[in-house]
Amino acid sequence: MKDLRAKADMLVEALPYIRQWAGTTMVVKYGGAAMVSPEHKRHVAQDLVLLQHVGIKTVVVHGGGPRISELMQRLGKEPVFVEGQRVTDAETMEIAQMVLVGSISQDLVGHIYQAGGRAVSISGKDGQTIRAKKKRGAGEVDLGQVGDITEVNPELILSLADAGYMAVISTIGIGEDGMSYNINADTAAGAVAAALGAEKLIVLSDVPGLLRDPSDEASLISELKLDEAKALIKGGHIEGGMKPKLQGCVKALEGGVKRAHLLDGRLAHCILMELFTDRGVGTMIEG
Amino acid sequence: MKDLRAKADMLVEALPYIRQWAGTTMVVKYGGAAMVSPEHKRHVAQDLVLLQHVGIKTVVVHGGGPRISELMQRLGKEPVFVEGQRVTDAETMEIAQMVLVGSISQDLVGHIYQAGGRAVSISGKDGQTIRAKKKRGAGEVDLGQVGDITEVNPELILSLADAGYMAVISTIGIGEDGMSYNINADTAAGAVAAALGAEKLIVLSDVPGLLRDPSDEASLISELKLDEAKALIKGGHIEGGMKPKLQGCVKALEGGVKRAHLLDGRLAHCILMELFTDRGVGTMIEG
Amino acid sequence: MKDLRAKADMLVEALPYIRQWAGTTMVVKYGGAAMVSPEHKRHVAQDLVLLQHVGIKTVVVHGGGPRISELMQRLGKEPVFVEGQRVTDAETMEIAQMVLVGSISQDLVGHIYQAGGRAVSISGKDGQTIRAKKKRGAGEVDLGQVGDITEVNPELILSLADAGYMAVISTIGIGEDGMSYNINADTAAGAVAAALGAEKLIVLSDVPGLLRDPSDEASLISELKLDEAKALIKGGHIEGGMKPKLQGCVKALEGGVKRAHLLDGRLAHCILMELFTDRGVGTMIEG
Amino acid sequence: MKDLRAKADMLVEALPYIRQWAGTTMVVKYGGAAMVSPEHKRHVAQDLVLLQHVGIKTVVVHGGGPRISELMQRLGKEPVFVEGQRVTDAETMEIAQMVLVGSISQDLVGHIYQAGGRAVSISGKDGQTIRAKKKRGAGEVDLGQVGDITEVNPELILSLADAGYMAVISTIGIGEDGMSYNINADTAAGAVAAALGAEKLIVLSDVPGLLRDPSDEASLISELKLDEAKALIKGGHIEGGMKPKLQGCVKALEGGVKRAHLLDGRLAHCILMELFTDRGVGTMIEG
Amino acid sequence: MKDLRAKADMLVEALPYIRQWAGTTMVVKYGGAAMVSPEHKRHVAQDLVLLQHVGIKTVVVHGGGPRISELMQRLGKEPVFVEGQRVTDAETMEIAQMVLVGSISQDLVGHIYQAGGRAVSISGKDGQTIRAKKKRGAGEVDLGQVGDITEVNPELILSLADAGYMAVISTIGIGEDGMSYNINADTAAGAVAAALGAEKLIVLSDVPGLLRDPSDEASLISELKLDEAKALIKGGHIEGGMKPKLQGCVKALEGGVKRAHLLDGRLAHCILMELFTDRGVGTMIEG
Amino acid sequence: MKDLRAKADMLVEALPYIRQWAGTTMVVKYGGAAMVSPEHKRHVAQDLVLLQHVGIKTVVVHGGGPRISELMQRLGKEPVFVEGQRVTDAETMEIAQMVLVGSISQDLVGHIYQAGGRAVSISGKDGQTIRAKKKRGAGEVDLGQVGDITEVNPELILSLADAGYMAVISTIGIGEDGMSYNINADTAAGAVAAALGAEKLIVLSDVPGLLRDPSDEASLISELKLDEAKALIKGGHIEGGMKPKLQGCVKALEGGVKRAHLLDGRLAHCILMELFTDRGVGTMIEG
Repeated sequence: MKDLRAKADMLVEALPYIRQWAGTTMVVKYGGAAMVSPEHKRHVAQDLVLLQHVGIKTVVVHGGGPRISELMQRLGKEPVFVEGQRVTDAETMEIAQMVLVGSISQDLVGHIYQAGGRAVSISGKDGQTIRAKKKRGAGEVDLGQVGDITEVNPELILSLADAGYMAVISTIGIGEDGMSYNINADTAAGAVAAALGAEKLIVLSDVPGLLRDPSDEASLISELKLDEAKALIKGGHIEGGMKPKLQGCVKALEGGVKRAHLLDGRLAHCILMELFTDRGVGTMIEG
Repeated sequence: MKDLRAKADMLVEALPYIRQWAGTTMVVKYGGAAMVSPEHKRHVAQDLVLLQHVGIKTVVVHGGGPRISELMQRLGKEPVFVEGQRVTDAETMEIAQMVLVGSISQDLVGHIYQAGGRAVSISGKDGQTIRAKKKRGAGEVDLGQVGDITEVNPELILSLADAGYMAVISTIGIGEDGMSYNINADTAAGAVAAALGAEKLIVLSDVPGLLRDPSDEASLISELKLDEAKALIKGGHIEGGMKPKLQGCVKALEGGVKRAHLLDGRLAHCILMELFTDRGVGTMIEG
Repeated sequence: MKDLRAKADMLVEALPYIRQWAGTTMVVKYGGAAMVSPEHKRHVAQDLVLLQHVGIKTVVVHGGGPRISELMQRLGKEPVFVEGQRVTDAETMEIAQMVLVGSISQDLVGHIYQAGGRAVSISGKDGQTIRAKKKRGAGEVDLGQVGDITEVNPELILSLADAGYMAVISTIGIGEDGMSYNINADTAAGAVAAALGAEKLIVLSDVPGLLRDPSDEASLISELKLDEAKALIKGGHIEGGMKPKLQGCVKALEGGVKRAHLLDGRLAHCILMELFTDRGVGTMIEG
Repeated sequence: MKDLRAKADMLVEALPYIRQWAGTTMVVKYGGAAMVSPEHKRHVAQDLVLLQHVGIKTVVVHGGGPRISELMQRLGKEPVFVEGQRVTDAETMEIAQMVLVGSISQDLVGHIYQAGGRAVSISGKDGQTIRAKKKRGAGEVDLGQVGDITEVNPELILSLADAGYMAVISTIGIGEDGMSYNINADTAAGAVAAALGAEKLIVLSDVPGLLRDPSDEASLISELKLDEAKALIKGGHIEGGMKPKLQGCVKALEGGVKRAHLLDGRLAHCILMELFTDRGVGTMIEG
Repeated sequence: MKDLRAKADMLVEALPYIRQWAGTTMVVKYGGAAMVSPEHKRHVAQDLVLLQHVGIKTVVVHGGGPRISELMQRLGKEPVFVEGQRVTDAETMEIAQMVLVGSISQDLVGHIYQAGGRAVSISGKDGQTIRAKKKRGAGEVDLGQVGDITEVNPELILSLADAGYMAVISTIGIGEDGMSYNINADTAAGAVAAALGAEKLIVLSDVPGLLRDPSDEASLISELKLDEAKALIKGGHIEGGMKPKLQGCVKALEGGVKRAHLLDGRLAHCILMELFTDRGVGTMIEG
Repeated sequence: MKDLRAKADMLVEALPYIRQWAGTTMVVKYGGAAMVSPEHKRHVAQDLVLLQHVGIKTVVVHGGGPRISELMQRLGKEPVFVEGQRVTDAETMEIAQMVLVGSISQDLVGHIYQAGGRAVSISGKDGQTIRAKKKRGAGEVDLGQVGDITEVNPELILSLADAGYMAVISTIGIGEDGMSYNINADTAAGAVAAALGAEKLIVLSDVPGLLRDPSDEASLISELKLDEAKALIKGGHIEGGMKPKLQGCVKALEGGVKRAHLLDGRLAHCILMELFTDRGVGTMIEG
């Protein structure tokens, strides 16, 4: 009976948060370790479904770079990167689409169904949700079908949400010419959150959050102002995969999103911990 | 961090139940000890608000006999009961109305507001929700304005629910002649649950549930079929306050409600325990 | 047949007014003599129901001071007033609630039902309709739970109106702390009318309207501009119960209500006379 | 003041009827004397607008035989009737259309506007409201474009009613071949009332109602059962213009309309008298 | 099969236009030759129905001067014109109404029905769609019931469009006094197009469009700016029936309509040619 | 001008069909040659968009066997078929998903966008649209994740249609266990058409239709009754790829679809030819 009481108390502790978030929109950037093991996927799916069930309009944006490289290699094609951008010829674009839309999205939709939720996977081409144009190559290199977002059209996402479906988005953009473009998923997540007027953008990564010293997990920065985040990027203090993630957060906050969170996707149920308990985890950036 | 994980796990344990109950209607009969101490009231209010926030259409029906008797006595009027029924002259009716509608309902609405919910107190006269007629007195005694329900009209309750308000109902009925009638709250709860096509009727009492031997709390009957419940009543095995409670449950189940629960209102958060954990508490009666 | 023709002509005379008021909102402040005799109550209820049936969104706000004092005295508690305000300790608050919500409102709802209308009684706590804070005591006296309105939230009233119910409002406010507050009904009526953007506020009193000389009913002021009304109050020319009534009217007009009327509640069907015939009765104040 | 009280009492007397008819549909067959003098037209328009304003879905069907004959004659064409049916060649059809749709309907719409109502005149061709086929001529005579109704399609009438407009209907039908057909207005009124599931069909004529002896106005039959009405027709006891009127009533009642009324259109405000006072006028036929 | 392919290609050629016009509103001014022969009428009706079926909100405005004069003469009344305006006494007004509303509109509704469309004929009196006032006579002549539009109220037209009906409008206006007014149909078409925020106003006439030299059909002006059109009118270069047509176009464009077209109504399917092929016909005036 | 007239005439010829199909649902099974060359894809996309623009609820179902085999081989995996069914182990399932959802669907969505339409690609897992279970292997062979449809849930397709999007469906089913299943696209098209209550199922293949003698294109069967189609299948007269196509048609017709068409996908705009001209192409099967 004591155990039951503890469980009930936990729900009661979550109540003010459930109230607070009901009716808001949250965009979750899914990627990294959380996307690898079946157990992690199951945990993320449960978190997402819980959000959906307490009335949060939940939207997922995901990447999948390593999986794309892997399929390229299996097909005898060597991935080439220029300043962190994947050079994307027509065949690479096709492979990226197959991995993101045909594999990763479908896989997550299946896990969400298993956890009791309702999801629909879409790419940025569906409903012309992510409009893009060719990225102007830095210097002389032609990056091929790498794109910059020109507009996120939230209509389809909202119409799915109204019908009770969570959109799971692969970040393929569509040009005015009908061409597909490969879009950075972190940036896209920020743009989607802004277009939806989201309450929060939650970015899952493979580190505990933003670290003052990337080699020291104890140097976690718990809270950050938008201005500080921008200064850190400008100062060149952020490197590697964290840089686009932080840029995505900045994009979201500048677009009106209230808060962005960098969470440790290796930590089971980190989304629930952040949203429904008195103690936050990871790094919170405020507009 | 371990603690956070435990909390998140708890929410995940609750998830299948949240899913299961979302969109259903639950009627809670509120009374007894749960209605006395401020702490109990706070707990019940939190439970009700959690139900509301996970998408359950929550409706409360309450009684208040002891509080009516108390005010009668303060006003120099001795309560008279015939076979468990309060003889209700015009003045008694007025006093009952003031206590139920003006005090108990308003008090609960305040607690629900404190817990973050939205509630509206109504009597059965409002919107002609509970239509009643004079109870045919047993034998020669005239019970005065004691009434039997002729019809529960769910329109107002549903229209409040659609607008996001939980109805808190005082069981005063209205006759075709416009006369007020005093209605037994347990019976009314059953009739309201039936009229709403509720998923569950949850009756709070001051005992652990239905006991085989009323003097032995260990003799709790965990599960019961409708037929068994009816047999117990017919056989005269149920006495005191439990009898109308069980009759209310029978009325609900006969009217199409799926399950009725007799819970121990003295137990904090008993409603959450029953609905959101793997182990049930109290007595469950199935149709 | 001549008689029938006279009746039909009457309806035809009322037609332009029926057209004019259809779809508008009217707030009626109910109190005084009109609230005492069964016959008066029946007349007021008929008037309200007729308004409802010709398409006027009708809302009733009522007081009940004398009835509160009476119950206090029966319970051995002496009413204390400081500058016209009832000192309201917790017990007084409870008594006020019981009388207003549990007795007067319920009674009026019954009469409206008898006259063929659909009504729902609410307090300012229901749906957090009247938000209030503690009145800053004049001088050193603590008035207890006497409150000032901080906001009228019209949501519940409108949602009841949309569903075809007339709201009958007891002026109990709710504080951010969940505390109940005793609110002057005349002031509340003005604030409710303003929050609803009402066409008219109609205040029933026990005099023919605003009198230049309170002792001479022939000194009735038929029409008044808002500025004049404010000057009269400021000049200290208005005394007794008429002062808060006139203040309520001023509040309504300043909040955008088009006209306020002070009518003689002792006159049967005075509301219909004012609204549906070519000759006005009482005092009309224009914004 | 006494006069005001009398007026208010009148409204109160009408209240139960206003309640009773609110939300119902009433079809008024307009014709005869009521359609001639400006004063009569004004009275009928006021009655119709009052009905509209107290929430009755009001629909008007009108004829106009004498006006058609008159224009024919002015154009040098002699009207020919066979067994009461106007032989309708193409030119006659054109003339009928001009008189009914272009003159009588437009005139009534103007009067309704003057009385404060909102109306739209339609013919049975508009929205294919009255579908018809050529009447099988009795014997060898070809009646030309005289038609029998095959179906009344209530869609347009209902969509106008939803938008707040009263339909004023000229009884021109449309064949599958697109041909116009001249339809008896009394019959059409019955069919329209049936198709709309009207509460009442009210037929205005130039006599006090159904008379046992057509030459004696004192022989008025106040009430009649459907069966009796059918027997009267079958027995050949009804002659002249009253026959199609009574047949229209029978058609309406057989189609589910609750009551049909034959009123004296010469009597100002006869519709209001019938609907809103305790005493009926004319003949009432019950299903 | 080659033929089938040609047909399919034609549809594909029309596709971009179908897309472009879907959901827009187009007002067609119908008159002149197109209104005379049955074949022309059938063609226009087919065009209108095609517009309706590809999702264009289609509205027709028509005149009918020659038909009015003709009926006047048959009734022994000589038409009188002052500066191009028909002097309109009460009898003339009645005749105009009968011809426009009762004959021409009804006739077109029949043809639209035959072509598979859904139409409802209305006059400017119905739903008070065209409000007008007496035209100030030029000089001393009293033109009688000739009116100027004071306001076009698009409510009824829009509510018919929402219900799937094309409004066919006779340009009779209604004064505040309830009086009918004869309104120039070209002007009215412009005002209706402006009030509806139409995409296009399409005016059918009996010439190929605006001609630089009215006697030379080869002098067609294909495109014109609003300013040029106004200059032409001001310069007195436009005469006869083309002047009010061009004024109607100017009125529409000044009221926000994007483009106005003057088409040759003698040319079968000229509306389809203009809207759905790569080559325009007639004169296009741009705002 | 003659050319313009021909074009307009073509639209007019199409009008009765546009009318007839407006508002109906049509399911197009896309596959074979039509899915190979860019020109064919463009033609099909144009046809689909035209359907969408004339108000047909258009739904596409596609297969992609050859493309799956091709990617398998490139990844060093030999396709194995047993009685026409692809043996589908986990890796094959993954590959099939990538090809169908990530490549073919996305490609078609891009072409539809280019042709001016609005489309969303979904798999049967999205929104649990196609529920499936493991196919009972014929004999001892385990076909792996090859599935039979247990239910088509049309909710998501309908909610996309209401929002103006054409669903493009990859026939991956989802099991109760969350497992993905490979579903025959012809069968799935029939089941989807039945679940939607479609007007027509249109199946594109690489032959002119159903041939009496597969080696002789002149032996085309133009029309067929459902019973005859079933007899042909039962009699073993249908072989190869045509068999599942015909079975899909039978499934659709048995489920209430009115007609099924087998068209030659190699013929440009064959869908438009069938739907909008007087001559049909291919084989039509009627229920």
